Amino acid sequence: MGVASACSLALSYAGQASHAAVGSDPLLQTICAQTDATTLAVDNLFLLSSTYLVFVMQLGFAMLCAGSVRAKNALNIMLTNVLDAASGALSYYLFGFAFAFGTGASTNSFIGNYYFCLRGFPDAEVGYDYSFFLFQWAFAIASAGITSGSIAERTQFVAYLIFSFFQSGFVYPIVSRWLWSSNGWMSASADAGSLLLGSGAVDFAGSGVVHMVGGIAGFWGALIEGPRIGRFDAYGRPNKSMRAHNATLVVLGTFILWFGWYGFNGGSFIHILVPSSSSSFLGFWSGVGRTALTTTLSGSTAALTTLFAKRLIDGHWSVLDVCNGLLGGFVGITAGCAVVAPWAAIICGFVSAWVLIGLNVLALRFRFDDPLEAAQLHGGCGLWGIIFVGLFAEKTYLEDYYTSRPGSNYGILLGGGWRLLIAQVIEAATIICWTSITMGPLFLALRYFNVLRTDGDDEVQGLDYSNHGGYAYGSFLGNKINFKEPSSHDDGTSYALLAGT
Amino acid sequence: MGVASACSLALSYAGQASHAAVGSDPLLQTICAQTDATTLAVDNLFLLSSTYLVFVMQLGFAMLCAGSVRAKNALNIMLTNVLDAASGALSYYLFGFAFAFGTGASTNSFIGNYYFCLRGFPDAEVGYDYSFFLFQWAFAIASAGITSGSIAERTQFVAYLIFSFFQSGFVYPIVSRWLWSSNGWMSASADAGSLLLGSGAVDFAGSGVVHMVGGIAGFWGALIEGPRIGRFDAYGRPNKSMRAHNATLVVLGTFILWFGWYGFNGGSFIHILVPSSSSSFLGFWSGVGRTALTTTLSGSTAALTTLFAKRLIDGHWSVLDVCNGLLGGFVGITAGCAVVAPWAAIICGFVSAWVLIGLNVLALRFRFDDPLEAAQLHGGCGLWGIIFVGLFAEKTYLEDYYTSRPGSNYGILLGGGWRLLIAQVIEAATIICWTSITMGPLFLALRYFNVLRTDGDDEVQGLDYSNHGGYAYGSFLGNKINFKEPSSHDDGTSYALLAGT
Amino acid sequence: MGVASACSLALSYAGQASHAAVGSDPLLQTICAQTDATTLAVDNLFLLSSTYLVFVMQLGFAMLCAGSVRAKNALNIMLTNVLDAASGALSYYLFGFAFAFGTGASTNSFIGNYYFCLRGFPDAEVGYDYSFFLFQWAFAIASAGITSGSIAERTQFVAYLIFSFFQSGFVYPIVSRWLWSSNGWMSASADAGSLLLGSGAVDFAGSGVVHMVGGIAGFWGALIEGPRIGRFDAYGRPNKSMRAHNATLVVLGTFILWFGWYGFNGGSFIHILVPSSSSSFLGFWSGVGRTALTTTLSGSTAALTTLFAKRLIDGHWSVLDVCNGLLGGFVGITAGCAVVAPWAAIICGFVSAWVLIGLNVLALRFRFDDPLEAAQLHGGCGLWGIIFVGLFAEKTYLEDYYTSRPGSNYGILLGGGWRLLIAQVIEAATIICWTSITMGPLFLALRYFNVLRTDGDDEVQGLDYSNHGGYAYGSFLGNKINFKEPSSHDDGTSYALLAGT
Repeated sequence: MGVASACSLALSYAGQASHAAVGSDPLLQTICAQTDATTLAVDNLFLLSSTYLVFVMQLGFAMLCAGSVRAKNALNIMLTNVLDAASGALSYYLFGFAFAFGTGASTNSFIGNYYFCLRGFPDAEVGYDYSFFLFQWAFAIASAGITSGSIAERTQFVAYLIFSFFQSGFVYPIVSRWLWSSNGWMSASADAGSLLLGSGAVDFAGSGVVHMVGGIAGFWGALIEGPRIGRFDAYGRPNKSMRAHNATLVVLGTFILWFGWYGFNGGSFIHILVPSSSSSFLGFWSGVGRTALTTTLSGSTAALTTLFAKRLIDGHWSVLDVCNGLLGGFVGITAGCAVVAPWAAIICGFVSAWVLIGLNVLALRFRFDDPLEAAQLHGGCGLWGIIFVGLFAEKTYLEDYYTSRPGSNYGILLGGGWRLLIAQVIEAATIICWTSITMGPLFLALRYFNVLRTDGDDEVQGLDYSNHGGYAYGSFLGNKINFKEPSSHDDGTSYALLAGT
Repeated sequence: MGVASACSLALSYAGQASHAAVGSDPLLQTICAQTDATTLAVDNLFLLSSTYLVFVMQLGFAMLCAGSVRAKNALNIMLTNVLDAASGALSYYLFGFAFAFGTGASTNSFIGNYYFCLRGFPDAEVGYDYSFFLFQWAFAIASAGITSGSIAERTQFVAYLIFSFFQSGFVYPIVSRWLWSSNGWMSASADAGSLLLGSGAVDFAGSGVVHMVGGIAGFWGALIEGPRIGRFDAYGRPNKSMRAHNATLVVLGTFILWFGWYGFNGGSFIHILVPSSSSSFLGFWSGVGRTALTTTLSGSTAALTTLFAKRLIDGHWSVLDVCNGLLGGFVGITAGCAVVAPWAAIICGFVSAWVLIGLNVLALRFRFDDPLEAAQLHGGCGLWGIIFVGLFAEKTYLEDYYTSRPGSNYGILLGGGWRLLIAQVIEAATIICWTSITMGPLFLALRYFNVLRTDGDDEVQGLDYSNHGGYAYGSFLGNKINFKEPSSHDDGTSYALLAGT
Repeated sequence: MGVASACSLALSYAGQASHAAVGSDPLLQTICAQTDATTLAVDNLFLLSSTYLVFVMQLGFAMLCAGSVRAKNALNIMLTNVLDAASGALSYYLFGFAFAFGTGASTNSFIGNYYFCLRGFPDAEVGYDYSFFLFQWAFAIASAGITSGSIAERTQFVAYLIFSFFQSGFVYPIVSRWLWSSNGWMSASADAGSLLLGSGAVDFAGSGVVHMVGGIAGFWGALIEGPRIGRFDAYGRPNKSMRAHNATLVVLGTFILWFGWYGFNGGSFIHILVPSSSSSFLGFWSGVGRTALTTTLSGSTAALTTLFAKRLIDGHWSVLDVCNGLLGGFVGITAGCAVVAPWAAIICGFVSAWVLIGLNVLALRFRFDDPLEAAQLHGGCGLWGIIFVGLFAEKTYLEDYYTSRPGSNYGILLGGGWRLLIAQVIEAATIICWTSITMGPLFLALRYFNVLRTDGDDEVQGLDYSNHGGYAYGSFLGNKINFKEPSSHDDGTSYALLAGT
């Protein structure tokens, strides 16, 4: 969508009506030019501020992951988060953005083929400026960050470099094109004529595009690698002591993700200075605020639901579960954040919490080991989020943002018919298939060439020592001997004790 | 206060003077509409950005509190901070905001009765959009976060849930209505006719509304619970080893609070695109900058004052005291940040530091145990901040913001008479009474029903183990035995050693 | 540069052409006034948001430094970061800003002499508002923070207070005047007539002004103090175990610095609502985005270059080196971020990484001990960054921002001639000389009066215990005895073990 500008309209009107009158008045010309410049400045300021918030989520991931693994693997997981951002910047600049949003003469709805190395950028015609590139880059690296969590504590470092480059440079950009580019084959922003089912799939900030892609990729990665050594005993019982080594880092990461999510969901409006046709008081600026509210309510409800549910199930108030429940609520609302009412966001969060709890039970039963619960959290709650839109999307909110969509197709529970819901199901199915047929074979190939799973001794010793030349905490240095003792290899506790964190 | 808009004025002018002329010119109409939309977009962007900064203060509290308690209680205190935000979101959405800012036909000056579940929101008439709700929510949860610190390390978890819900859902909203709603009985934004003493109390960003409410509530909570086990020995001497278990978390939290305070104080302008009547170069945008400056100067002065004072008193450069002194300076300037000159902010910070030092001496003498010094810091410096406004508030700054107030009532030391100072004293007294008669009985009732203070063994063992199923740091897991040894129960040092942090 | 405003121009135009026509139309007058107010509000909102991001870099420094030193000195280094901000606020308010940007009747190009204690502020004539002061303050404290790292772990606390006050209050402001004030003798913003070599030196966001000043000062401090006890053995071999005690803090600090750098580089535009003369779609808003992109690409390239280079050299994937490499890339691009093309930023980052690697090799060879590598990173990459501008600065980008400069002088490799490159060399040489003749003698004087280097026993014991009355981590408290044992004094490992982090 291009930038809104009253004065361009005004002048074009004037052009038809009384061009001379306006054209010959430098004062009005100057006022209009300034008004247009203001619109561009405000929209770019808004999008850049949102971008910085989305970027800082990478720090949130890093702290959440570092705290959630054992001390002996903290360096490893943090380095992957740093590199997701760094290598993602180069791959997205070279071709990722081109695949996702490239538009030109020979454009197709599957993959973009313009803007490689940002040639022809900024593009005034379609209204793409650098801020738009950066915002989309911050999203791309988030997707890879999710997957890193699923395969933590047992993966060779080179495997990270390969999958991260492939996922944020190719797999993710393709999906984002399908949903978010006006050329996407299931995009709700497409021209009225080419809308899937006459509706298009609505994934406002990416429950599917970002979270499901990351979660499904993580699912295959974790499945193909298998559980960490010692995660399940001979009888398949989980080893409870393989837990977060530092809860303060987990809470730190969770709060930073909450903070960044306001940029993630609110920023997805791309523009803020777009008035509403219904009321002079309303506009995208109001939608951004409403989005921040639905995001807050969904996450908060999920956190409280998880708190009491786990209290009943496990008998104590679990901090780590509440943090993950909160994030599940955010993932769930991400697709619908801008198109549902606040009360519906509470329902979204409540269900998200149970989706995560249920999937974690299944994961244990089937001995699926995802150290960050990323597959369950981002894959599962992301799937729910996409369906949720088909159930509760509001007519007016959809019309305000997706101007080319027919307003008649909205949430089925609100009387909006089945078209949107079916489109949402198609999106979910498509993402599952696409991610599976791309990332699945990649992980299998990595395993085939023995670059996926790390050597058993290295895993027991800790990836930090074997791959990164030391440990995250100074205390390890003076005590290498202790790590040679096989007796302390079962659960990482003794490392943690020495790590002291 | 509604949104400023030149064009609305312009058109209304045109309406009177030459309605036809303007009304019939679509170009001017379009320009004016765009100008109005720009004002709304910029104001909402400003308020939302400020809201995110205020929200991140919750992370600051969490880190500050976690670092300031012993390792065995870190999970507990962090969970309360997460839940202050989560349960506060629901309670404030359901009724908290309605109590605070509800305005309608049958409005009264004591408690609001509109906008329950945000019905009738956004309200174009009074200029309330979602951004305003979110900003006020972020304030409400801050108040509860303060109190959590005072009763840390010895409170049953369920007691947290109850008091936090009651305080951020009822006690705080009522006070914020009195001071900040145009309907509040002592609000400086009230209509000229209904101003308390013809002046109203000026508490710009909430030294009283937020900090005193949180601090006074914390005072009663800590007093009713009594000191932590081992805090004072048989002779009433303090146990110095019950200190912050991790100073890096304390510094992390302090810096995040500093960062967020810019949104807290500057954002309290609510609008930024409001020109000043005195100069075309000045306006709220300049006031926001001046507010950030007074905030910086007051906190910095308080930090340096504390640094040298504690060096003289204790003989060393104390990091933790400097951090608390810095926060004391921020609390002190919060009420006057927008209405005092930068040089006065330096005085504010200097006095704030001594207020905190003095109250901490008193607390030790009377064996009052507040692990975070929250009652002294937020209660004491908050009280000073309210009085400070009555002494140093500037005529012009007051007039720029509080347009309905008579400019003649400003800081008594600047020649503005006694009315403002008396109004400030009334505000302080009212907040002390209101918070005491609401929160005091609540804590007594919780104690009566045995849900306030945790069991002695649990306290010695650590709340994390007894309430949350584990410890914040992995190292505990392999060493449960050590915690059974009574010999190590006196001061938590040995836990800390094992926690290694 | 003053604030851009179409309407002021429009009205002045009208003033000449048809004053009556416009002057007599209140509607147009109102529209123009509102347009001007909007420009001021948007520019101030942009600059204040950027300021908050730059400020939070101080937290990044604190965490980076704390994690990079040994546990026994964590309190000490964090306190210096807090005080850099606090004492810097007072010194910059009292005279620092006046030295840097003071302009008035008797202005000279060496040192400013107006705005002491911000008298005569805000200054509508030159377009200085409080936001500009705060932005410059955040830069000033960053410079001192850099130097603190170089002399970490062995410096008396009082020496910190003295050098920090002197550097951020005098040494840095003078340099910033030379480069950034329109009165500066080598500023690229100076009037066409007084441009050095008819070009002026281009240091957009301060590779030289901020980073080289901090790095060179750090070089002299570290050189004059000499290496930490035990850093090199009798044969001059480095002691590898004197390393970062907590890598999670290092990564936390690095990400926060990355986050803040977007405000540091992008915010240096000072204004965002300034249209470009070339295209109605472009303007400063687009330049800010491009700046964020070049910053991201340079840092990312440097991080990846370091990753693979250290893998080849040391045989492992080093997290700490990648973090420092990333920061080196940011330091390198800071001077040219707004005036080079994205592809050039990749070259900048690649070279920055090798500059840092090379200087670290030299540092080891000459037994130069800078615990944070600050002299190499900020001094070395900062120097490269200044030269880089002379090689790759783009004609159009320079013209858009430095309107008084002749467009003919740009990057020599792009055909822009030698003038800019020579000016850059002069800047680098000047900064090296100025910083050396001011900070060098200061550190020598501090050493002469025995207030520079701490006592050997205190250094071995740890500065936290000797200067700050305890240790950063609670675990130390129960184990003071251990620290008396000389046998564990060699490398701090055993402290770290006890510190457990």
